Amino acid sequence: MKFNLITLFPEFFDSPLSHGLMGKAVEKDIVSFNRIDPRSYTEDRHRSVDDRPYGGGPGMVMFVEPIAKALDDLGIRPTRRGGMESGKRLVMLSPKGRPLTQSLARELAAEDEITLVCGRYEGIDARFEDLYPVECVSVGDYVLNGGEAGALSLIESVARLLPDFMGHAESGTEESFSSGLLEYPHYTRPPEYEGLGVPEVLSSGNHAVIEKWRREKSLETTLASRPEILSDAADLTRDDVLHLRSTPRKRLGRNLSMALVHYPVLNKFGEKAAVSLTNLDIHDMSRVSRSYSLAGMYAVTPIEDQKRLADKLISHWTEGPGSKVNPDRAKALSTVQVKDSLEDVVANIERETGKRPVIVTTSARGAGTLIPGQVRQWLEESPVLLVFGTGHGLAPEILEMAVGSLRPIRFMDGYNHLSVRSAVAITVDRLLGDAW
Amino acid sequence: MKFNLITLFPEFFDSPLSHGLMGKAVEKDIVSFNRIDPRSYTEDRHRSVDDRPYGGGPGMVMFVEPIAKALDDLGIRPTRRGGMESGKRLVMLSPKGRPLTQSLARELAAEDEITLVCGRYEGIDARFEDLYPVECVSVGDYVLNGGEAGALSLIESVARLLPDFMGHAESGTEESFSSGLLEYPHYTRPPEYEGLGVPEVLSSGNHAVIEKWRREKSLETTLASRPEILSDAADLTRDDVLHLRSTPRKRLGRNLSMALVHYPVLNKFGEKAAVSLTNLDIHDMSRVSRSYSLAGMYAVTPIEDQKRLADKLISHWTEGPGSKVNPDRAKALSTVQVKDSLEDVVANIERETGKRPVIVTTSARGAGTLIPGQVRQWLEESPVLLVFGTGHGLAPEILEMAVGSLRPIRFMDGYNHLSVRSAVAITVDRLLGDAW
Repeated sequence: MKFNLITLFPEFFDSPLSHGLMGKAVEKDIVSFNRIDPRSYTEDRHRSVDDRPYGGGPGMVMFVEPIAKALDDLGIRPTRRGGMESGKRLVMLSPKGRPLTQSLARELAAEDEITLVCGRYEGIDARFEDLYPVECVSVGDYVLNGGEAGALSLIESVARLLPDFMGHAESGTEESFSSGLLEYPHYTRPPEYEGLGVPEVLSSGNHAVIEKWRREKSLETTLASRPEILSDAADLTRDDVLHLRSTPRKRLGRNLSMALVHYPVLNKFGEKAAVSLTNLDIHDMSRVSRSYSLAGMYAVTPIEDQKRLADKLISHWTEGPGSKVNPDRAKALSTVQVKDSLEDVVANIERETGKRPVIVTTSARGAGTLIPGQVRQWLEESPVLLVFGTGHGLAPEILEMAVGSLRPIRFMDGYNHLSVRSAVAITVDRLLGDAW
Repeated sequence: MKFNLITLFPEFFDSPLSHGLMGKAVEKDIVSFNRIDPRSYTEDRHRSVDDRPYGGGPGMVMFVEPIAKALDDLGIRPTRRGGMESGKRLVMLSPKGRPLTQSLARELAAEDEITLVCGRYEGIDARFEDLYPVECVSVGDYVLNGGEAGALSLIESVARLLPDFMGHAESGTEESFSSGLLEYPHYTRPPEYEGLGVPEVLSSGNHAVIEKWRREKSLETTLASRPEILSDAADLTRDDVLHLRSTPRKRLGRNLSMALVHYPVLNKFGEKAAVSLTNLDIHDMSRVSRSYSLAGMYAVTPIEDQKRLADKLISHWTEGPGSKVNPDRAKALSTVQVKDSLEDVVANIERETGKRPVIVTTSARGAGTLIPGQVRQWLEESPVLLVFGTGHGLAPEILEMAVGSLRPIRFMDGYNHLSVRSAVAITVDRLLGDAW
């Protein structure tokens, strides 16, 4: 496989591409590198490859022309001018690119030739991307001095998948991410080091048992370190799911309570008002509360009638006839408490946990700016109370109790008219997903 | 700032750390590198640093001891043996680590000294992490030959944030991710290249207008290339949100329809049955449908009575008195259609789009294995019909029409008893989030 590297710093690659496994792969002609410096395609006295940006600001921007000339020598021409598609992949390392993943590495490893363009300084003049069929690839959400270090990661991740690159043919396939999971722990000599032994199963000689242990450790490592991978990418078997269920995990939800406030809220004229309880709100919220293993949920109303109604509803399902018909519903509704005011809810959480909860409000409109990642951080060390309003939203005195409000769901759309039941389900899922 | 690099391949770093800005920073003593080869801490004749893993399998695993000796010389000792915490950060590059982000780079740039451990082959004996207070950091979800290439990315992302590293002081702060967004496009000379000009605003000389244009382009680039960043990380102002609302975007939801099936479903004895429509199901689902700009939603029942009821409900809100009281609700319910069967729904989508939809079912239990990323890929090029059941789940004949079932929500928990209203809200949000 041939890599063309378009770079202002060809010497950057000297040592990484000539040592270790990569050096051997070059010797064995498994990979070859053609380094091309755009500077050698300049004609002016200073051999300029860049200039200050239009519009001002720091740094320098690379010219298109020297890169275009270098590509021309590789048979790659701008499609905009009717040039033929060369069929060769042209990749630019850029933070805005498609993230490099193991599956992208596998895809690229099937090519015979790839051209990698490394930008430097503030990047390349934007017209480069207008003219050429460039695929942007990002190696991660961090800023580098230029594309070179990212190109090195890309080259290594791709080259090691080529036949004969690794000493052992299998070695390339059993690693982290190859199966969508992180790797299990490895052990080697000595059998005891600083008082620590090696798991017995590994010396059992029973390959099926060792395989099972390793798969289970992979699942546990992934759940502990990168739980979000499990929800969106992993290829899990039924046995995997059963093992995950039995694995203890960080349950951020046990620090999360939620409250549905019926007073004080706003009516459609923006006045302070009380809203009646809705039977199905309590049902749906309590089912979310139980499904996500929350600390509990509160219905807030100071109206005696309404409190009696709520208590009757809850006891029907938790103690009365409902509890026999549907024990799952009993478990859900047993997480519900009715309180006179949000202050009472806060006092109750403080009594139970010894800590005052961080209060986070929600709103369909409004200027909320909190994001789920921030709330997850709080949940790591403190109880959090998530507050939902009925009617036309929470009254200002409730908003003032909170550290802030979550950014509205679908904040990029004008239309925002979800039921509170839907908003609760979506918000809790955004905070906790499958794994937290 | 001092980097200790523990690596079996110290020469890997020769050229990248001695050229360009990094080379200058070393000369100016802004950064220094102390490369340590664990092999020099071995005493046997072969200078062994690794061996085959216990339990078999490909590759070699690194011994703890040579690394421990190298760390001892740096004043870092195992905490397990009562050794003092050195206060110096010990980082190992590993796929299971905390992902390297710009904010982690900023955090590390505040240190005076960091020790980076680069594993090779299959990694380091797991007891290393048991003994030392190692922080694992991952540069991305791809597999490399060892920690060296990742260490290089980490070093570069951290070093460039040090005072005086960059030529221009500002240059380090205005890049991609510094503000939580991707960067705006840059332009430099010539003013016209291959028929393409430079945006006029950049030559206006009006800095406020240029700043505004650049911020807007950053938002647009992020929305087009990495929309998920906007939901979970970006620090957005009110103006940003307004600009995002006015920016056209890839709306995968316009290819998504959903159906709530009332027949054929299962009753609690596992027999085929019909379930009555629930008013609030239709309301809540239609509000999700409209909020996420779906192609539409269908209520499926062949029972004449029930169809009349649904039509009456819908027309009350879309044409009758309800439409005047609550025009938002009218918009939601106008996305609802009532059909006799799922076949009729499929035929309707086929008539409207010219393509047969990909049918995806959902279930609270069951062995569904589809993940949201897969469904999003289908949505890029085809209509998708997402099917929800009532009662005790969809009948087998419906499941047979589908390519597969989504993995159940909260699949790692035994308790799974969400309302269909909650399941719809969560599922659609997992597919489309804020940005799609």
